Amino acid sequence: MTNILLLQGANMNWLGTRQPEIYGTTTAMELDRRILEYAAGKGCQVEIFYTNIEGEAINRLYKAHDKGVDAVVMNPAGFSYAGYALRDAIKGIAVPVVEVHISNLHRRGFESVTGEATVGTIMGFGLHRYLLGIDAALELVAAREGG
Amino acid sequence: MTNILLLQGANMNWLGTRQPEIYGTTTAMELDRRILEYAAGKGCQVEIFYTNIEGEAINRLYKAHDKGVDAVVMNPAGFSYAGYALRDAIKGIAVPVVEVHISNLHRRGFESVTGEATVGTIMGFGLHRYLLGIDAALELVAAREGG
Amino acid sequence: MTNILLLQGANMNWLGTRQPEIYGTTTAMELDRRILEYAAGKGCQVEIFYTNIEGEAINRLYKAHDKGVDAVVMNPAGFSYAGYALRDAIKGIAVPVVEVHISNLHRRGFESVTGEATVGTIMGFGLHRYLLGIDAALELVAAREGG
Amino acid sequence: MTNILLLQGANMNWLGTRQPEIYGTTTAMELDRRILEYAAGKGCQVEIFYTNIEGEAINRLYKAHDKGVDAVVMNPAGFSYAGYALRDAIKGIAVPVVEVHISNLHRRGFESVTGEATVGTIMGFGLHRYLLGIDAALELVAAREGG
Amino acid sequence: MTNILLLQGANMNWLGTRQPEIYGTTTAMELDRRILEYAAGKGCQVEIFYTNIEGEAINRLYKAHDKGVDAVVMNPAGFSYAGYALRDAIKGIAVPVVEVHISNLHRRGFESVTGEATVGTIMGFGLHRYLLGIDAALELVAAREGG
Amino acid sequence: MTNILLLQGANMNWLGTRQPEIYGTTTAMELDRRILEYAAGKGCQVEIFYTNIEGEAINRLYKAHDKGVDAVVMNPAGFSYAGYALRDAIKGIAVPVVEVHISNLHRRGFESVTGEATVGTIMGFGLHRYLLGIDAALELVAAREGG
Amino acid sequence: MTNILLLQGANMNWLGTRQPEIYGTTTAMELDRRILEYAAGKGCQVEIFYTNIEGEAINRLYKAHDKGVDAVVMNPAGFSYAGYALRDAIKGIAVPVVEVHISNLHRRGFESVTGEATVGTIMGFGLHRYLLGIDAALELVAAREGG
Amino acid sequence: MTNILLLQGANMNWLGTRQPEIYGTTTAMELDRRILEYAAGKGCQVEIFYTNIEGEAINRLYKAHDKGVDAVVMNPAGFSYAGYALRDAIKGIAVPVVEVHISNLHRRGFESVTGEATVGTIMGFGLHRYLLGIDAALELVAAREGG
Amino acid sequence: MTNILLLQGANMNWLGTRQPEIYGTTTAMELDRRILEYAAGKGCQVEIFYTNIEGEAINRLYKAHDKGVDAVVMNPAGFSYAGYALRDAIKGIAVPVVEVHISNLHRRGFESVTGEATVGTIMGFGLHRYLLGIDAALELVAAREGG
Amino acid sequence: MTNILLLQGANMNWLGTRQPEIYGTTTAMELDRRILEYAAGKGCQVEIFYTNIEGEAINRLYKAHDKGVDAVVMNPAGFSYAGYALRDAIKGIAVPVVEVHISNLHRRGFESVTGEATVGTIMGFGLHRYLLGIDAALELVAAREGG
Amino acid sequence: MTNILLLQGANMNWLGTRQPEIYGTTTAMELDRRILEYAAGKGCQVEIFYTNIEGEAINRLYKAHDKGVDAVVMNPAGFSYAGYALRDAIKGIAVPVVEVHISNLHRRGFESVTGEATVGTIMGFGLHRYLLGIDAALELVAAREGG
Amino acid sequence: MTNILLLQGANMNWLGTRQPEIYGTTTAMELDRRILEYAAGKGCQVEIFYTNIEGEAINRLYKAHDKGVDAVVMNPAGFSYAGYALRDAIKGIAVPVVEVHISNLHRRGFESVTGEATVGTIMGFGLHRYLLGIDAALELVAAREGG
Repeated sequence: MTNILLLQGANMNWLGTRQPEIYGTTTAMELDRRILEYAAGKGCQVEIFYTNIEGEAINRLYKAHDKGVDAVVMNPAGFSYAGYALRDAIKGIAVPVVEVHISNLHRRGFESVTGEATVGTIMGFGLHRYLLGIDAALELVAAREGG
Repeated sequence: MTNILLLQGANMNWLGTRQPEIYGTTTAMELDRRILEYAAGKGCQVEIFYTNIEGEAINRLYKAHDKGVDAVVMNPAGFSYAGYALRDAIKGIAVPVVEVHISNLHRRGFESVTGEATVGTIMGFGLHRYLLGIDAALELVAAREGG
Repeated sequence: MTNILLLQGANMNWLGTRQPEIYGTTTAMELDRRILEYAAGKGCQVEIFYTNIEGEAINRLYKAHDKGVDAVVMNPAGFSYAGYALRDAIKGIAVPVVEVHISNLHRRGFESVTGEATVGTIMGFGLHRYLLGIDAALELVAAREGG
Repeated sequence: MTNILLLQGANMNWLGTRQPEIYGTTTAMELDRRILEYAAGKGCQVEIFYTNIEGEAINRLYKAHDKGVDAVVMNPAGFSYAGYALRDAIKGIAVPVVEVHISNLHRRGFESVTGEATVGTIMGFGLHRYLLGIDAALELVAAREGG
Repeated sequence: MTNILLLQGANMNWLGTRQPEIYGTTTAMELDRRILEYAAGKGCQVEIFYTNIEGEAINRLYKAHDKGVDAVVMNPAGFSYAGYALRDAIKGIAVPVVEVHISNLHRRGFESVTGEATVGTIMGFGLHRYLLGIDAALELVAAREGG
Repeated sequence: MTNILLLQGANMNWLGTRQPEIYGTTTAMELDRRILEYAAGKGCQVEIFYTNIEGEAINRLYKAHDKGVDAVVMNPAGFSYAGYALRDAIKGIAVPVVEVHISNLHRRGFESVTGEATVGTIMGFGLHRYLLGIDAALELVAAREGG
Repeated sequence: MTNILLLQGANMNWLGTRQPEIYGTTTAMELDRRILEYAAGKGCQVEIFYTNIEGEAINRLYKAHDKGVDAVVMNPAGFSYAGYALRDAIKGIAVPVVEVHISNLHRRGFESVTGEATVGTIMGFGLHRYLLGIDAALELVAAREGG
Repeated sequence: MTNILLLQGANMNWLGTRQPEIYGTTTAMELDRRILEYAAGKGCQVEIFYTNIEGEAINRLYKAHDKGVDAVVMNPAGFSYAGYALRDAIKGIAVPVVEVHISNLHRRGFESVTGEATVGTIMGFGLHRYLLGIDAALELVAAREGG
Repeated sequence: MTNILLLQGANMNWLGTRQPEIYGTTTAMELDRRILEYAAGKGCQVEIFYTNIEGEAINRLYKAHDKGVDAVVMNPAGFSYAGYALRDAIKGIAVPVVEVHISNLHRRGFESVTGEATVGTIMGFGLHRYLLGIDAALELVAAREGG
Repeated sequence: MTNILLLQGANMNWLGTRQPEIYGTTTAMELDRRILEYAAGKGCQVEIFYTNIEGEAINRLYKAHDKGVDAVVMNPAGFSYAGYALRDAIKGIAVPVVEVHISNLHRRGFESVTGEATVGTIMGFGLHRYLLGIDAALELVAAREGG
Repeated sequence: MTNILLLQGANMNWLGTRQPEIYGTTTAMELDRRILEYAAGKGCQVEIFYTNIEGEAINRLYKAHDKGVDAVVMNPAGFSYAGYALRDAIKGIAVPVVEVHISNLHRRGFESVTGEATVGTIMGFGLHRYLLGIDAALELVAAREGG
Repeated sequence: MTNILLLQGANMNWLGTRQPEIYGTTTAMELDRRILEYAAGKGCQVEIFYTNIEGEAINRLYKAHDKGVDAVVMNPAGFSYAGYALRDAIKGIAVPVVEVHISNLHRRGFESVTGEATVGTIMGFGLHRYLLGIDAALELVAAREGG
């Protein structure tokens, strides 16, 4: 069974409450349930980890590598601006990382610093992009196993 | 039945031949077939349009609007650098546009100018991102109809 | 009789439909009629040419030069951002070009690259600026003939 | 009867003497007479105010607001470079301001800081642009009264 | 026999008429004759293609690749400023491209964006640089065949 | 008794009328009364000086120095953008200057040039910041006398 | 009773020891006592929280929101340079945040990145600015309750 | 007899008091006497004009032109930073302007904006540079009369 | 006996696994042993501390100060990019800090932000630089004790 | 007989040894022989001068001017980056200078500072560009004599 | 007797020949004679040293220091653009350096890098500035001896 | 026996005299003796070469390469700012170069341009860094011989 780590960066625990006009009203808990159901339907297991501390996110990535997680779906969120150490950690692990952003960064005029290290990025599409992220992660795993 | 326009920007007709170490060896023709099959399996119809002339891409978008196309999946490719007029056209039409890029732009150090106007962007993931793009487009249509 | 070419740049064919909160609801067709009537009242003939392809705009300018058109009124629109080749063409022809922009570029924070080559620029004032453009063009012709 | 204030910014009192190769040989006095005649022909009254002190221009704008002047035609001239306080004053008054510049700023490679606050800008066309400015101002007043 | 494509970018059709103080008075037609004679003397055949539309230049390059043209001599001219898509096309074809510019770009303070993709650049030397371009192209072909 | 000069920079005379959605509806006169009452309650005397001319503000500061004013509370307002000469005057006088700004400059994306010379800055908090400014000034005077 | 959280950012625990020529010799403990006494005199309760980890500051802000704290007075200190995630957290909570800085940032030539999200900023005035910060916070609470 | 105008810009009236560690302890009055004596010894008459208002400096330059003053020695001082209108006035008058600065601008890391318009600049050398300025002005007058 | 703290910044725990083509194959554990042996041979004791959380590094530095550690050898690693708070902590403690970087930062085109606060920097030389760092630290201690 | 000076800038003496993957394996001596033979075949004499000292290159150019050399072919090489004094010397002499660069500068992302002063530039084409440089120089001489 | 070194930087040996429209027609030899006569009239001795090699200028400055030269008048000329090492040498010697430039650098839009280290700068005034430079140097010596 | 070249760049001959508050009072001669003794103790021979001319430094590096010197320790000093040609020479030779700087460049806010080409850099630590540089060079030689 495919194991995926979903890493939610700074301020994502606050989803549904923080600036709903930008981020929508779905709460973190509702989003988690929706993602887990979707993944289960695809026969894959997702562990979800929230943190507001960049170094904890780095520690979690190394642990995922050690435990043989198949892929990571990550929304760097508040770490997008200056998460250079997180970026270097992504470069250092063997697990592929799919990056997602709720809103379209181009519209808000900045670029994610972790994007240089991830396999691919999905931005916009509201919360649906998490499901696209799961799809992309599963496809990466399938391609690697098939290759 | 959902109708999608796939718009392939400058130099995409050359896929599989141009810089295969970056873009892979799948030709444009093979890619087209793979996309059409995938879309058919989802019960949707895709029209594919290639052009190296930005103004023709703009004209094609206006035509898509007039004909009631449901969504556009677009790889701006060579128009990514200075396609400001294309960007304005995307802002002007009612059809949602999903932007895809074969390689991860962040790794190559520039940003797509059209990205400010599209609903969302999928970068990286090799050619698979076209299928993710179809998925995202279908989801957008479903969300609008359901809303 | 004075002959004027009105050159409408990228996305102007979409006037009245594209982002009406910025560009208003007057359609391209209504604008054309209003301009032609105004010009007729001033005893001058206006030919109107729309294009979304920068190279076609360049070709049209050279043709205007060859046919002895007296002046050009041009809204570069989508060509304002990167129309360097168009700018060079304007420098190369003998026909004076009056540049107009529907909205005030200063407010939107960028500058037209063709502005360096045109005789003068009229920005803001909504659609009325086309009539001011006709006035300015006629005045230029009168000044040259009187000089 | 429509009342217009013509505000001439820093160094405009020197017109006809200062760098005639750029600004022409018409003196400020001759220009004034030409503008007043033109305005009278349109049935409107123009008061002309020259100042080299930015704060006096600001004071004059507030006075125009208090006296119910219908529109302002302003050549910021020497205030174009750093007239941020003047710009804020224009934003603060209810009277619409039409900005004119004798030479085409794009050719001289800088942008007027007040342009962000004015209704529209007319650059180039030599001194004729003052008459185009009067036209634009009258049109603004007509549009407001008709609206 | 060696086959060379001479690609003349935006505004080159206007040679001899456009800004003769910069570009000289030789017309495009005279230049063509001079180049063809020179090439014939070297026993090589040159096809000359003028276009003001960047996408057409891209199409022409792909066609040259398909037809087995030996080398391209190109003056990007008006495409020098923002011809990123043209640059990518040059990277994608197997035919070597020699870039020429009539005037010395360094003196006019900008750089050609296509220069990053071409085998070499010849700038300045007036129209003579076209003949140097033919020489360079022939040498490239000879080196490849000899290698 | 402590003597404070309140210096109101360019456009502050227009308070309550200019862009009330940013600056509120309290007029300059009402603000003056509120400040004087507050200061009187603290047993201190405030002289209020409004000017739209930067040089007059400089002259007023030198006069304050000569008259032995204890502290200055200043809202540079329109002088915030380019008031370098004002900044140098603040550096040159012995009287401490407290800077206040009605709106939070960080939100509007620029920095006050005089801020480099003043003892401290209070931004945001609406008009209440004038009272905080009086408090800060009194504290500065107390600290100096106590020191 | 009004509840205020005082959040002391990176390196503030070191106050009185770190670079006393810039930050003074008052220790963190002495400052705390002085603030608590001042607040008590105003009938309000202050909880003081020191952290060198940005993510902990974010967590603390969310907890303050959940517990219904009335206002936050925050010295971002070492988080001023790259605390983008902290800034987003401030935008996301309902509790108003007053920002204070011991030294005048303008003099040291940089800007606090959190300043864009806080209600207002007080810089300079030595340690006294904490008391001004308490005043400002109380005033914000009073204004909200009275409004 | 040669007539020279000495124009002292913003904050120069404060000489000897303002930041003596940078500008020295000679007062404006002492400097004036020293300059007048030196000029008298050279058989030339100097009128000295101090102002803190840029527009008054402009007015004074135009008056100098009208009265046939032979040369101007000017210390723009506080107008050095943003005195663009003053710069344009210098360009517009026939009187040559010698620019002096008490301290070496290069050491303080900025450039005088008026320097682009003046005949020459003397920076550094303490107050002695005023006498060098008088010498330079006299030489300019002599060269013109001798020419 | 001299006590040295070796502080290993973000991602250093991953040494030998992360991007071995850049950082080599020596693991963190092997490196630790090598450093401890080398230090022991010099008669000094080294405590090694790894962390991926910047705030923990700051806390550790303050603790080192309190415990009277003689010198710190630090590889900021992932904190090099945005570790401004760490930099301020280094400025605030009395313990001298020697900075080391495994790869030559100049070659990778960026600069360590902590470098402004450390006594000296050693970059490049592979892992050997840690031993050079120990040498430098010992020399600093010797110089201080001898001075 | 035509006399040409070939000036080889900093590090060119090292050709064939320095970074052969960029500059090839032909040594300076072999290149010299090839150039001299080629020139002899064209009936022209070439003097070759190598230097690593910019001032010596300047001295050599002045000597070439004094001795009536017909043209210079120069590879600025290591002087390309900061050879401003060399550039000024080229502007000052009457001898035309043809600039050559072994590799295509555009690909390495910088511009030669001397390029602003030379008659033309040939970049890329490997060592063959020296022969193209001789051709261009001969053509310049022929054009001048024929003119 | 006062001893002055006149140091003429890169390309100054070419004076009178190089770009006479900018630098005039006086040759270096004529200038030398004029300066020596002027200095002799002031009872001072001037040694003149020309070099096109920056390092030689540095060596010459150190020698001047060792020999007890009283002051240096230097025209950095071609060393103005990148003469950082020369600048550091000037900072290192005890001899005061007066910097002169024939043309007004402000008009040509760049700044001399050595200007940060010299006592003062005289720009513009044609060749007369050398005499002003001698005056300034003599004054510096007099001030030091009198002080 | 290991042979090391110590290359001292521009202004290093002046050590102990130039700005002792920055560079200390040890003279070049004293430093040389200290280095030679230290190296002798390590059983290695050091040749020391001082120059103020960048091209001579380049020549010396090539000579070191030809003579089989084992390593170079270089303080670029005055060549750090614009020594691009020196940098290219370092890239071109087979001898490894260790770069040292007396003061910490990060504190003085600039970067050495040669640093991109050297094996490693040691900055700060006063003159002791020369000894660390010798150590590092010896280690490089040992590693190569052992490898």
